Amino acid sequence: MGKLCRASVLYGPKDLRLEERELESPDSTELQIAIRATGLCGSDLHYYQHYRNGDIQVTEPLSLGHESAGVVVVVGSHVGDFKVGDRVALEVGLPCGECERCREGRYNICQHLRFRSSAKASPHFQGTLQDRINHPASWCHKLPDHVSYDVGAILEPLGVAIQASRRAQIAQESSTLVLGAGAVGLLCAAMAKVVGSSHVVIADIQQERVKFATQNGFAHEGFTVPSKRGHNIDEKLQIAKETAASATEKIRNGTGSTGGFDVVLECTGVEACTQAAIYATRPAGKVVIVGMGNPVQTLPISAAAHREVDILGTFRYANTYPQAIELVSGHNPLLPDLGKLVTHRFLGLDDVERAFEMAARANDADGNLVLKVVVESNDA
Amino acid sequence: MGKLCRASVLYGPKDLRLEERELESPDSTELQIAIRATGLCGSDLHYYQHYRNGDIQVTEPLSLGHESAGVVVVVGSHVGDFKVGDRVALEVGLPCGECERCREGRYNICQHLRFRSSAKASPHFQGTLQDRINHPASWCHKLPDHVSYDVGAILEPLGVAIQASRRAQIAQESSTLVLGAGAVGLLCAAMAKVVGSSHVVIADIQQERVKFATQNGFAHEGFTVPSKRGHNIDEKLQIAKETAASATEKIRNGTGSTGGFDVVLECTGVEACTQAAIYATRPAGKVVIVGMGNPVQTLPISAAAHREVDILGTFRYANTYPQAIELVSGHNPLLPDLGKLVTHRFLGLDDVERAFEMAARANDADGNLVLKVVVESNDA
Amino acid sequence: MGKLCRASVLYGPKDLRLEERELESPDSTELQIAIRATGLCGSDLHYYQHYRNGDIQVTEPLSLGHESAGVVVVVGSHVGDFKVGDRVALEVGLPCGECERCREGRYNICQHLRFRSSAKASPHFQGTLQDRINHPASWCHKLPDHVSYDVGAILEPLGVAIQASRRAQIAQESSTLVLGAGAVGLLCAAMAKVVGSSHVVIADIQQERVKFATQNGFAHEGFTVPSKRGHNIDEKLQIAKETAASATEKIRNGTGSTGGFDVVLECTGVEACTQAAIYATRPAGKVVIVGMGNPVQTLPISAAAHREVDILGTFRYANTYPQAIELVSGHNPLLPDLGKLVTHRFLGLDDVERAFEMAARANDADGNLVLKVVVESNDA
Amino acid sequence: MGKLCRASVLYGPKDLRLEERELESPDSTELQIAIRATGLCGSDLHYYQHYRNGDIQVTEPLSLGHESAGVVVVVGSHVGDFKVGDRVALEVGLPCGECERCREGRYNICQHLRFRSSAKASPHFQGTLQDRINHPASWCHKLPDHVSYDVGAILEPLGVAIQASRRAQIAQESSTLVLGAGAVGLLCAAMAKVVGSSHVVIADIQQERVKFATQNGFAHEGFTVPSKRGHNIDEKLQIAKETAASATEKIRNGTGSTGGFDVVLECTGVEACTQAAIYATRPAGKVVIVGMGNPVQTLPISAAAHREVDILGTFRYANTYPQAIELVSGHNPLLPDLGKLVTHRFLGLDDVERAFEMAARANDADGNLVLKVVVESNDA
Repeated sequence: MGKLCRASVLYGPKDLRLEERELESPDSTELQIAIRATGLCGSDLHYYQHYRNGDIQVTEPLSLGHESAGVVVVVGSHVGDFKVGDRVALEVGLPCGECERCREGRYNICQHLRFRSSAKASPHFQGTLQDRINHPASWCHKLPDHVSYDVGAILEPLGVAIQASRRAQIAQESSTLVLGAGAVGLLCAAMAKVVGSSHVVIADIQQERVKFATQNGFAHEGFTVPSKRGHNIDEKLQIAKETAASATEKIRNGTGSTGGFDVVLECTGVEACTQAAIYATRPAGKVVIVGMGNPVQTLPISAAAHREVDILGTFRYANTYPQAIELVSGHNPLLPDLGKLVTHRFLGLDDVERAFEMAARANDADGNLVLKVVVESNDA
Repeated sequence: MGKLCRASVLYGPKDLRLEERELESPDSTELQIAIRATGLCGSDLHYYQHYRNGDIQVTEPLSLGHESAGVVVVVGSHVGDFKVGDRVALEVGLPCGECERCREGRYNICQHLRFRSSAKASPHFQGTLQDRINHPASWCHKLPDHVSYDVGAILEPLGVAIQASRRAQIAQESSTLVLGAGAVGLLCAAMAKVVGSSHVVIADIQQERVKFATQNGFAHEGFTVPSKRGHNIDEKLQIAKETAASATEKIRNGTGSTGGFDVVLECTGVEACTQAAIYATRPAGKVVIVGMGNPVQTLPISAAAHREVDILGTFRYANTYPQAIELVSGHNPLLPDLGKLVTHRFLGLDDVERAFEMAARANDADGNLVLKVVVESNDA
Repeated sequence: MGKLCRASVLYGPKDLRLEERELESPDSTELQIAIRATGLCGSDLHYYQHYRNGDIQVTEPLSLGHESAGVVVVVGSHVGDFKVGDRVALEVGLPCGECERCREGRYNICQHLRFRSSAKASPHFQGTLQDRINHPASWCHKLPDHVSYDVGAILEPLGVAIQASRRAQIAQESSTLVLGAGAVGLLCAAMAKVVGSSHVVIADIQQERVKFATQNGFAHEGFTVPSKRGHNIDEKLQIAKETAASATEKIRNGTGSTGGFDVVLECTGVEACTQAAIYATRPAGKVVIVGMGNPVQTLPISAAAHREVDILGTFRYANTYPQAIELVSGHNPLLPDLGKLVTHRFLGLDDVERAFEMAARANDADGNLVLKVVVESNDA
Repeated sequence: MGKLCRASVLYGPKDLRLEERELESPDSTELQIAIRATGLCGSDLHYYQHYRNGDIQVTEPLSLGHESAGVVVVVGSHVGDFKVGDRVALEVGLPCGECERCREGRYNICQHLRFRSSAKASPHFQGTLQDRINHPASWCHKLPDHVSYDVGAILEPLGVAIQASRRAQIAQESSTLVLGAGAVGLLCAAMAKVVGSSHVVIADIQQERVKFATQNGFAHEGFTVPSKRGHNIDEKLQIAKETAASATEKIRNGTGSTGGFDVVLECTGVEACTQAAIYATRPAGKVVIVGMGNPVQTLPISAAAHREVDILGTFRYANTYPQAIELVSGHNPLLPDLGKLVTHRFLGLDDVERAFEMAARANDADGNLVLKVVVESNDA
């Protein structure tokens, strides 16, 4: 009943193998999808390099990739809304649907959620760096014709940014600071603009990324953070205060406000940035922790608590695909061209290894910025 | 026009002097109040012992005390709602009324707020350890006859607890963990019960406090935290996890829930407790930082962020007095007898020094628990 | 594979027949439940009397009943959390799980929801007035041993009351007016008390119901509304204002407030009551429409809008069973004895007709109040 | 101490007189402002035509006008943030600052609020159709140089639109229907766009207004509602359903959604429109009542309640000026040119009568649309 399909499979650190797997027919409620684009994410890169991601150890061969779009090639017998040829983005985290979190609409933190390309569940839920994949139709989202597969893949990190913007409850005409100008930081900045922040300031240690952000409409302003390091906590906090002051300077000019940002989206996972985030937020403002990085951080917690600054966690996304598709389908003048985030493309599963090597770099051989690397596929 | 009144004034560490001050007639919108009860708070004690509180240095003689109730003795010419003899609780933080925070209803974090007994503003805004005081009528709250002045004074820390319970958005039939069983922790536990938490667990390093909490209806259950210390961050976090596990054990029995508490109210200001608070909270739950203590803490921030656990600041209170008075005036069977918190009373301003010495102790000479110490006054 | 079970089936107005149906084995994710108690609801009564409910016409034989509890007799092969003998309450509305409303946690207004005993879906989704029934395990909720099946059945209308209290965002120490003292009104009043309303006033045209409410701890106070009728809209609104004034009088005494109730829960579906509800609500307060009745009503809409009084719809419930079970399992002193709502019991499916005839009456032959009628079953 | 200033004063229906009043020096916390622009509002027009507005009867000579901007000519002795020559918009509703509503941030529904040009308070609080006026500095908002006085005056009705958009909690990429394309309806549509609604549909009975809206970027789409009338409630509701269907058709094309609009902003005050608003809203959507008109309306209330559609009141605005100024100062590409709303200008207080006569018309003598009429003043 099944047929063969090719998959890029990780067997160990930097040990990617292209192999053939048998693919069953889709279940009655599933679609079979020929994958057309998969973006590489930081977690994929960690798995590729270390065969682990933070605490999570890979324990069996694993296909990576979870930022994906493709075309429907087989439709399950009970699926009503899709037909062969439909272009879709895949929402690759499948929650249990029955727990308290699922039933209250926060399925992203369902403790039974299975997420493609993650080694957390056992057996691992395989990623999308495969020719074809079966996926529940109710977690596939139709793409309009004029939205490219690459942008379809970017809907996944865009979902992270939408989730962050929702958690932050960014208000109209507010000020937002984004720390970190990688793909997720850039998308967070873009979403802050889209949802009404009139002063979006972005910061990064790499000047080119900041320039990319401001020149391409991802943020209103930006500045480069010097990679200074403190020797003890007092020095570290002093540096964080200086970073916060540099950021606040940008809105003081713009708005006369002296109290700091309404919202700070921390997208680096670096302790020094979380510290700066707290200092840069106004009383009753919000810090949203988007970046995954240093799991234990020394923070000026009273500087947050005494001013009722809230430190909000965010994890992946729930209910973001419909809005994301609506957004990239429309003509919102506040939205930058998300396609520009795709700086490097590789064609075919044979090229996945080269794609990962590129994703590991800040700049390519020609000195161009590396932001999002996408593995594309033509028709099989 | 003024008349003499006596005030207990701090001139340096442990240098309290009883002196006479001239008291003006109240302004047209003020009341003059004869203070009947002032509770001593941890911040008062810091000032008394060190002539400073955290970063805030006293720079001129300062009357302490901000948990206060009294009786109206003079009514300003434009005040309509009060008469001589009215019993009132004083809300002693006066916001500017004009800034963005004030106008949106979060006046507790008004950056221009003047708070009695705090050395933050210059000149310092004098506390209530005085015979009489002039205070704006709109910040005085009438007490029903059957509410004692002592309980009237306790409305201030009760406001802190109400604010914490509001920020936590404690849901009906939820579980709440309170870390710290001092006066504020006990009031937080009581408020968690009042607002509908069906499993309120309290923890402290002092067994007697835990016993006080459970025996007097402030919490459903409690446990003693061993004062174990880790030598490095890994050991510390391991201990915090164990504390969290001990706490979670209490609700696992009760509810079958294994995911942790819906809400954790951290009332100690101790790093080890904030760490445990994060671990003890369920996905999408909330940690509220109530305790003031170690301003810089090393925290397992990813353990919060990845589960969308929010770390919410809380600072004093806004709009809590009306609800607090309604609460202590009624017959809510969920509310413990708050009067029991007042373990020690001292009569008259001459006794303030002894009151502070008592407030500094965990137990009195007879081995009784010291929770809230109140300086009372009879009619002048 | 199936076995025979008996069902009470409605074939026309007042045409109930007891018949045998073949019952399949439960699916892998279902439980088979022997029904032990089914409460009769107003919608059941409408179907029984008219073979229709509002706009919804019955088009095929229909078993009624949706307030139900029973015992597990067969466990589907993939069900992990239940065993034979478990006592359960049934949540009888099954949402699609895939639409926007379901995924955001508001599954009660899923447009594809199938609800037992309702003739809306085609084929009709059969109610619980049957010996046995197969139901998805994930929509069964375990009852503790000390919670009776009758109370298990009442969890359904209690869910309506919980939903109403959530929509109203009833605050601690607030005032609530409940219009209508039938089973749902009484449960709404009880929930208002439970979630912290310190002044719950209930009104009804039937004095005995009001007396029941106040004497059994469902409300703090109550009053009887005269069944006066206006001849034109001006007279009608005048009467509504008088009803509102009578209600407000109750809290003016209690609290000194003159602005009306924080929340009004309208549980009658009668136009005159919705009018009174609007007038009785304070500026920025909330009217929640719980009662189903007159679908078109003439309302003083400006009196709501100009004071930012919100008129909130509520429909059935979402995510209420866990909280409801927690509530009835605990020892919340604010909760009245819900078992008292069950004024009349009938044993066995043979007695369903008599049960409906009783449910149609305000008082039984002995003059006792009829509130909730339950059809109970012993072991088959 | 005072000096003379001229005021346009209403003495009866259509009895406007230009007279000289003595103007005191401003209080220590006030500014004296030379009014430069006052927009005429529907309520002004009612007063002008009938010497009353709804239930509110004028009882003493009254200056009209409350949409105003001007320039500071005298600065009170205690005012720190302003200087002579500052251009300001006036927020003309002064709340008490002490009631529960004020302290929780909803000062727009303060029951003691005094609002310029309204006859509600006694003595009436005089409007801004005067040369100069003293106003509390804390309720004056600085205008940047590049924002015209006309737009400064429009900030007042823009505040109404901002308030409506906040109450509706309009989500990113949502659909919004605006009923009524007068000045307030147009501003509501613009704000819906600004805050992220990707499908803003506007409807009016006057085709030119709809055309104005869509051609000038106030709405994405529009349609004309036929002024059909039903003879009984069934016919009326049928017509309302048809209007709703016409509206929903617009988004069905756009989005495939069939459930109706996420938000409907009712800006006409007409019963038929509120009915249509309810039918046009999706389950769990929101109807916001912005328009003031028919105070008593016959509504299909079950059609709202059963789908948890909320009917939300909105009244004037709170905390909107800072955001409004930020908005008109910036370069938000979603914001249409608000200056285009000012279709007619009259210079000087001598011309107020002609201004009102124009404001009463739908089209001027040349057939041009009349939207907002502004009375401007040059330097005195």
